Amino acid sequence: MPVNPAVKLKLQIYCDHEIAMGPGKADLLDAIAAHGSISAAARAMGMSYRRAWLLVDAMNRCWSGPLVETLAGGGHERGARVSELGAEVLRQYRAMQTAAGQAAADRFDTPLAALLAPTPRPAQH
Amino acid sequence: MPVNPAVKLKLQIYCDHEIAMGPGKADLLDAIAAHGSISAAARAMGMSYRRAWLLVDAMNRCWSGPLVETLAGGGHERGARVSELGAEVLRQYRAMQTAAGQAAADRFDTPLAALLAPTPRPAQH
Repeated sequence: MPVNPAVKLKLQIYCDHEIAMGPGKADLLDAIAAHGSISAAARAMGMSYRRAWLLVDAMNRCWSGPLVETLAGGGHERGARVSELGAEVLRQYRAMQTAAGQAAADRFDTPLAALLAPTPRPAQH
Repeated sequence: MPVNPAVKLKLQIYCDHEIAMGPGKADLLDAIAAHGSISAAARAMGMSYRRAWLLVDAMNRCWSGPLVETLAGGGHERGARVSELGAEVLRQYRAMQTAAGQAAADRFDTPLAALLAPTPRPAQH
């Protein structure tokens, strides 16, 4: 098929009124695990250090313990790692994403995809 | 439980690079069905007429036929109705939302909810 009709899914977990986990926070955890510090992870994601720090701070306050542990010394460049709890939460969040995405795709493939146009018709405005 | 940890899910269907269906468009279809015109639906949703019209235009270009049919005469206040195709697409989109949400909730209830804090701990900034 020339078309690639995509089903996109965004999953957020709230702790009270704060977002405890979502696509951006999950990607940040992956980046911290890969790069070993919040600042390097932020750079890799094209995100300010402050923004990354705020996301980490929210995650660290919303679960039963911190998802990211910072190592002593060195300011912004000091190391950080994803805690065991963080790895577990991330793994389960990814499993939720997969399960929800699969459920949506299962429903989409059969009846709804057939009703989609190959490409949008031209706009009238 | 004093907590209400919410799992929120946003589902979008793309036709090429355009969003053919999503939460806002689905709610707009419901409002058009309820109110009988695009302008009344827009008002009910606190949305500008232009914004609602653009969403309808996108939906009408992204499926095998129009999801919303406007009735002759009367400018902005003329009537509009959800087509049979629109009702079918909406029904199937809602079913996808339900299935994906249920799959996510099933995964959440057991292992992940237990790891969530009752409320976020105080921010350190």
